Amino acid sequence: MAEALEVHRFDSDTQVRRQAEGTWAADIRPGWTSLGGTVNGGYLMAVALGAATAELDGAEPVTATAHFIRPGVVGPAQIDVETVKRGRLKSTVTARLDQDGGERLRLLATFAESGAITGPVGFSVAPPAIPAPDECLPPPPMIRAAADIAERFDYRITPQTRWIRGTLGDTARLDAWIRFADGREPDAAALPLLVDAFPPAVLEVVEAAGTPTLELTVHVRQRPAPGWIQARLTTRVLAGGLLEEDVELWDSGGALVAMSRQLALFQPLG
Amino acid sequence: MAEALEVHRFDSDTQVRRQAEGTWAADIRPGWTSLGGTVNGGYLMAVALGAATAELDGAEPVTATAHFIRPGVVGPAQIDVETVKRGRLKSTVTARLDQDGGERLRLLATFAESGAITGPVGFSVAPPAIPAPDECLPPPPMIRAAADIAERFDYRITPQTRWIRGTLGDTARLDAWIRFADGREPDAAALPLLVDAFPPAVLEVVEAAGTPTLELTVHVRQRPAPGWIQARLTTRVLAGGLLEEDVELWDSGGALVAMSRQLALFQPLG
Repeated sequence: MAEALEVHRFDSDTQVRRQAEGTWAADIRPGWTSLGGTVNGGYLMAVALGAATAELDGAEPVTATAHFIRPGVVGPAQIDVETVKRGRLKSTVTARLDQDGGERLRLLATFAESGAITGPVGFSVAPPAIPAPDECLPPPPMIRAAADIAERFDYRITPQTRWIRGTLGDTARLDAWIRFADGREPDAAALPLLVDAFPPAVLEVVEAAGTPTLELTVHVRQRPAPGWIQARLTTRVLAGGLLEEDVELWDSGGALVAMSRQLALFQPLG
Repeated sequence: MAEALEVHRFDSDTQVRRQAEGTWAADIRPGWTSLGGTVNGGYLMAVALGAATAELDGAEPVTATAHFIRPGVVGPAQIDVETVKRGRLKSTVTARLDQDGGERLRLLATFAESGAITGPVGFSVAPPAIPAPDECLPPPPMIRAAADIAERFDYRITPQTRWIRGTLGDTARLDAWIRFADGREPDAAALPLLVDAFPPAVLEVVEAAGTPTLELTVHVRQRPAPGWIQARLTTRVLAGGLLEEDVELWDSGGALVAMSRQLALFQPLG
């Protein structure tokens, strides 16, 4: 009897096909649209990083930065990967993701060759104490209607969160839980998407705003264990029409698995 | 009578000369060596970012990431700048810095076109309350002897700092002041150097370690006012042989002017 082969949506929707030395094809699929109606940046980045990872064969990303040039669209994409240096311990690559002849994203990433991120922990940050997932709330229907990426995940947001109750606070911080809706377990490849999969923390302090990402940097600090991922999002500075958002992710064992920071435009609405 | 023309060392040592479309020459000068004996990464990054800034003519960097491929050396360098996209509001460039035919650094940066970073402040982070510069201490002679970059700056480190007293604490955090020793005032071009000019915060908790940088990302959040720069350095996670270091800089008016994060190797000594 054939075993049922379960293919999760993240894996099918980030698949890359080798076209030539350093050149990969991918399909940007529907269903990954953020608030604002554009293809989620973390999803685009995961596709580009997937091509870079395939090119290096066996190395694991530890730090990846994407600069978003133009919004992505649903349809075919080409990723050209340049290996800057392949080393014994670490390797650096850069990649560009093009669609319809226009560049959408430029990636720069450094990989560790030999399971560096599985080494011992000297010290770390414990996850903040927040209510368990079943004591938290899903995002309101307004979000699910506006951003179909919300359907890809099971989110739980702490009941303390102000924007889901329609009020504003004075701290742009969000504590939450996340896991894939289809049961796929988290791994290093999914972390760039997971850090960019939440509504922006700045919605705690402003009524409504677009926050298109200029740049997103993700550090993969440990391989996540299966189960819920706990997240804390924080924005501390809104100035000159720009804001940063820091995201930290912990796995179900309480290990800090990713640290990210993005710089985004702040576009007040209404 | 001719006016005395004061050229500061940072400016003369980061000068770039246009060779051709997108190609710049520079000289990596002596006097910028970090602990560990290699050319300071922030200095190399400032040179590469200077070439990128010259190429874009009139734009200001808001986010720049450097991946360090090989240590830099004193001597000539070539910087090749590729303009990924020149836009009306923002522009993205990538650059590689080569010496002796080998790549030393790859840069990816996004620039704002129209003084975006001078816009109004919505909210920000106040500098932590620390003793004034004249109540703080210069780094011990051991540091000045080991790293000639220490001579380029006037540093003041809070008396609470443990490693300058030869003891260890349990928090990898350093509060300090910095300014150029020759009176040059801080500006956006100098911020990548300033965030990388301190002894690592991890020395608060470990006896001695090398911390070569894999990747450094700097967000320029406001143009700094003249005077002392206040700095806070923090390392929160040391795991898998890697550590991050966050640096925040405030200008003399208390404005947060830069946020940086780097990922570095952790190499215990002795």
